[in-house]
Amino acid sequence: MKDCLFCKIIEKEIPTEILYEDKDVVAFLDIKPANKGHVLVLPKKHYKNFLETPKQEFNKIFEVCQKIAKAQMKALNAHGFNIMINNSRVAGHLIDHLHVHVIPRFENDGLKHFVQSEYNKGEQKKVFDRIKSFLK
Amino acid sequence: MKDCLFCKIIEKEIPTEILYEDKDVVAFLDIKPANKGHVLVLPKKHYKNFLETPKQEFNKIFEVCQKIAKAQMKALNAHGFNIMINNSRVAGHLIDHLHVHVIPRFENDGLKHFVQSEYNKGEQKKVFDRIKSFLK
Repeated sequence: MKDCLFCKIIEKEIPTEILYEDKDVVAFLDIKPANKGHVLVLPKKHYKNFLETPKQEFNKIFEVCQKIAKAQMKALNAHGFNIMINNSRVAGHLIDHLHVHVIPRFENDGLKHFVQSEYNKGEQKKVFDRIKSFLK
Repeated sequence: MKDCLFCKIIEKEIPTEILYEDKDVVAFLDIKPANKGHVLVLPKKHYKNFLETPKQEFNKIFEVCQKIAKAQMKALNAHGFNIMINNSRVAGHLIDHLHVHVIPRFENDGLKHFVQSEYNKGEQKKVFDRIKSFLK
């Protein structure tokens, strides 16, 4: 898609070192990594975000995430990894072409997980009922 | 699997309010939510973690994540969401049955994204080469 940074990388209009590529999926380093070795995995087809991605794309995309994560663990002696997709600006989605973050993790790397909170009394049931009502 | 908390929930040995269920996938509220309405989506089959999940499971799992995210947005007036998978303890994976976090997001909800860092000069190329060497 015109004016999409990631489409330009995929089409080689913007030179980028490609870590992995097959007919459907491409992967390269995030230039502003949460941890060194942080990789972005994306479909070559332009889908604006997670919600607009056809469900049949996910097997291919996440198979590549598995390959990348295995390589990160071996290459960087990582102890684990996070897979993350952000949907909308408020969630950290900045480029409107679906991309999956694969972030290698190390003991005491200082990255903070989202903090766990608690429901007030009775609140969990209300939230449950409300979400469930939109799943029918 | 015996002694797996999530298998016990799936098999109704531990009573839990189920938000969504089909023959392959189940979803319920995380009882310690990062934000109210935080949902866990998991395959009914026991796979220890993301790396041990067969690739053909992902279409089904992430299709349900899409359903959940859409319901969260409508039900809670959420502005976005994060999809997250943690692999290994150091990454926040605490129960050894694959589960995908779907976390609704709101303006100014106070959740912190992982902080972006920078590569030192020459470092990005070294990291790239090292990961790439394990992808051949």
